[in-house]
This record gives sequence, C-alpha cells and structure tokens, in this order.
Amino acid sequence: ARPSHLDPAIAARLRRTSDGLLAAVVRQYGSTEVLMLAWMDDEALHRTLTTGRATYWSRSRGEYWVKGATSGHHQYVRAVALDCDGDALLVDVDQVGPACHTGRRTCFHNNLPVTGVSGERQARS
Amino acid sequence: ARPSHLDPAIAARLRRTSDGLLAAVVRQYGSTEVLMLAWMDDEALHRTLTTGRATYWSRSRGEYWVKGATSGHHQYVRAVALDCDGDALLVDVDQVGPACHTGRRTCFHNNLPVTGVSGERQARS
Repeated sequence: ARPSHLDPAIAARLRRTSDGLLAAVVRQYGSTEVLMLAWMDDEALHRTLTTGRATYWSRSRGEYWVKGATSGHHQYVRAVALDCDGDALLVDVDQVGPACHTGRRTCFHNNLPVTGVSGERQARS
Repeated sequence: ARPSHLDPAIAARLRRTSDGLLAAVVRQYGSTEVLMLAWMDDEALHRTLTTGRATYWSRSRGEYWVKGATSGHHQYVRAVALDCDGDALLVDVDQVGPACHTGRRTCFHNNLPVTGVSGERQARS
C-alpha cells in the first residue's frame, strides 16, 4: 500500500479492492447528473477531503490525478459519502465544463439496449 | 470467466477488472438519488438487459443476485449506459422501497468531513 495521511479513523472503515482502491461515483451536486466513475486509494481520498479538489488514482498511469489540472475541467468538492459496506464513495462536485475526456458532459453516454423493460413495467400496473 | 449469453458486440466493448467485473452505479431514474454501487459480470449484464430486472454478481457470495428477490425491494430497469472507457455502467432503475440493506433509501449515507471546500469555493468568487 502507498503511504497515506488519511485519518486512521476513516481508513479503518474502508474495504478496499485487492488493488487497494475504492470506486468513486462522481455526481454533479444538486442535479441528476452522474458524471463519471473513478478510483481512489487512501491518499487520494485524503487529498480530496482536505483540498476540496477531486483527486483520483489512475490505474492506467499508476499516479495521482487532480481532475482538471491539465484540462481545466475542475471538480470542486461539495460532499463525500462512504457507502454502507465501505467499498464505494459518492463524491458531490461542482463540475467545470465537461467531465468526460471526449468533451461530453458525462462519461456515461453509450446507451445499451434494454429489451426486457416493457413487459416488467406493464406487469406492475 | 463464467459462461455468458451477452451479445458479443457488447461484450467486445467491456473493459473488465482482473476479476471479470464492471462497476455498476445505480441511480433512481429521473431523480438525483444515487442508490448504490454493485458489480456485474457479462452474464449479470445480459440478464439485466434482457429481463429488465437489475441483476448483479455478489463478490462476497460468489453468485448472481437479483435485487429484491428476497427483500422485495425490486429494481425495474429503465436504461443502462456504458461509460467512455468501458469499465463502468450507469443503471437507471425504479427502486421499490429502500435500496440499502440497512433500510435506508440509499447506501451512501455515511458523510465524511470535507475540510478543504470553503477556501476553494471562496477563491472562485
């Protein structure tokens, strides 16, 4: 594990993957927009909480990554919540510009075909 | 990898973890609520798309899990989107009752202290 300054009381509540990471769901504060999913280790979480700037661990590059540092598409952190079993975070941010590297507002822009919806929905009424 | 009936054209777009999984972010359709984070393999995604009922892979139990099958807290699937790099899903559902096993509506109910927000926010004005 990489060294971290995270509060030990918080660290004790985390249930990390075998890679030492938590999934971080990023939401535009006060809206329905889920912007992206990224990954945090203990130190990325520490920096996010104490700087107010969303900071992730890049699995592909193997380094910390402050969202917007190169793109200017900053994420100002409004709130962070840990889930019930300690393996995921919900990060509420004010997103400047697009969150996705493709230039789209959110990373979730590839719809998959749901073929089973109609029958189930009709069955409820 | 476990056998799957997922459309090969969709399967080819997925970038799975070393465990063969994708992170699935679950949102209450049309609201700001992010309900939970769960995991899907190819077959769980196939079942979710074709039955319209959210189906996950339980990492702890090593089995498929249809949300609500035992609790009655069903998730009727409205839409599924894959993210830009193919490693995460956004699942829009109609959630019946609480999503969390604790009885709370969402699993993200443990707020962590963000100490760096005020300064950054003030610096923008």
